[in-house]
Amino acid sequence: MMAKQVEQDQLFIGIDGGGTKCRATIYSATQGVLGTGLGGPANPLHGLERTLESIMVSTQLALQDAGLRVEQVHDIIAGLGLAGVNIPGLYDKIMQWDHPFKEMYLTTDLHTACIGAHDGHDGAVIITGTGSCGFAIVNGETVNYGGHGFAQGDMGSGAWMGLEAVKASLVDLDGLGPKTILSESLKQHFHVTTAMGIAEQMAGQPSSGYAKLARHVFTAAEQNDEVALQIVKQGAEYISNLAKRLLEINPPRLSMIGGLAEPLNKWLDADIAKLVQLPKQPPEIGAIYFAMESTQHEIRKVN
Amino acid sequence: MMAKQVEQDQLFIGIDGGGTKCRATIYSATQGVLGTGLGGPANPLHGLERTLESIMVSTQLALQDAGLRVEQVHDIIAGLGLAGVNIPGLYDKIMQWDHPFKEMYLTTDLHTACIGAHDGHDGAVIITGTGSCGFAIVNGETVNYGGHGFAQGDMGSGAWMGLEAVKASLVDLDGLGPKTILSESLKQHFHVTTAMGIAEQMAGQPSSGYAKLARHVFTAAEQNDEVALQIVKQGAEYISNLAKRLLEINPPRLSMIGGLAEPLNKWLDADIAKLVQLPKQPPEIGAIYFAMESTQHEIRKVN
Repeated sequence: MMAKQVEQDQLFIGIDGGGTKCRATIYSATQGVLGTGLGGPANPLHGLERTLESIMVSTQLALQDAGLRVEQVHDIIAGLGLAGVNIPGLYDKIMQWDHPFKEMYLTTDLHTACIGAHDGHDGAVIITGTGSCGFAIVNGETVNYGGHGFAQGDMGSGAWMGLEAVKASLVDLDGLGPKTILSESLKQHFHVTTAMGIAEQMAGQPSSGYAKLARHVFTAAEQNDEVALQIVKQGAEYISNLAKRLLEINPPRLSMIGGLAEPLNKWLDADIAKLVQLPKQPPEIGAIYFAMESTQHEIRKVN
Repeated sequence: MMAKQVEQDQLFIGIDGGGTKCRATIYSATQGVLGTGLGGPANPLHGLERTLESIMVSTQLALQDAGLRVEQVHDIIAGLGLAGVNIPGLYDKIMQWDHPFKEMYLTTDLHTACIGAHDGHDGAVIITGTGSCGFAIVNGETVNYGGHGFAQGDMGSGAWMGLEAVKASLVDLDGLGPKTILSESLKQHFHVTTAMGIAEQMAGQPSSGYAKLARHVFTAAEQNDEVALQIVKQGAEYISNLAKRLLEINPPRLSMIGGLAEPLNKWLDADIAKLVQLPKQPPEIGAIYFAMESTQHEIRKVN
């Protein structure tokens, strides 16, 4: 990569949009992280207006936190990582936004997460939180698996695990499948006494509602509940396969992030589990690296 | 049952509410079926106002079809079969409706389907259409299994089968699971070329959107596609178990209704498949029998 003459005072903002919140970090190559800000939901697949609003809220809070004036936003180069912008129409819509930044560079949240996890270098990342997906970048080549959304994709994620727990409990409580202690756990969780009680509580719930139930599956698996063990093992097998698929392009590092990364680890294939390394930086720092790289600024590592 | 002196000229209307349409049939004990009417969606779980409106539309069309005057609705005794009225709050709300009928009797759509299927006698019924559920009545005792809704329940239904097909295709197209011809079927169905293309088409689809894909699973299973075979067999196993559970109270007959009843039949346990008998009457006639029984009129069979 050709490195421009570094403008020592150039400010960057890295923005990581997510389904529940938006994080922004302002960074100077000479002074490091100057400030951070937290905004609301910023998943453009769930609403463009809301996303742009959350980006501006997190930006303004980061400016405040950094002791900068509001109008200094015009001097800052922004890197954005947002879900769904691999869809060309959505990418174009956001790039057409009359944004306040000096320059703006946009990529997927997976890409910025990966850049952050490996501190600007090549690598692979698996996200297992409410949803699940995998991404790797090696010498400019990228691959991307999973992330097809609840309930049809995102195996091994919290939402998938919660849904499988509800399905198994309803079948058990109807006397139509194997007994599982998940049934009792979910009845207690919802303060109900019947299958229909559980079904009513979950009717129309979004993926995040199901993801809240994932911890019951891990707890039941620890108690050797056969049904819970099968769910956890099936989810972990999918995540292990996802990792193997990403490793086909030989990324030098592999990280897992998201709420299920830690509890799932011990259930992964031993070969995969031992390869997993902690992410070095969060996605918003990855978004800063992405902006630096896009402007051909020399990447100055964030400490 | 005590039989009242039959009022020869008493008119009944049977109403079967469903998620996509509402059917009404007007019946006279002396003259048989006088007329029928078809209204819009009438599932109170999806909207009470809309349900009452669809009931009135189907009623008015049935009155017209029968050559009756609009005000004669006040002389008719109504039987209603509606989803969700096993929830006491919903039952009460509908019973509080300032309805136009002489008398109104309300029960679940499953109950009226069962009464209809067995021509007013005891029996069991399994519905496998967009959703799935089972119901049986023997000597006044009723049992009710499944019907917990998409995507957490309703195994063996069209929506469940469609969802399983999409899940399997996405995993296959990512190279993360077994090959299946369902992937090609779904890509052709949606005129897309990638997993993400399928995922985008299905994002936010209701259960009926998934149910439309069920036929691809049967077609692939006929071609001995292992993945499709597994889906069909798993669905059929659940429906067979549902049937066995219903048979525990010894219903004299068992019927299956809904769009999947016929294609699923050959995949059921042989013991169950040979027990399944055609429904004798549709649910709206079951609703008429229910109204007759509720008013202690002698049930006069509909021919």
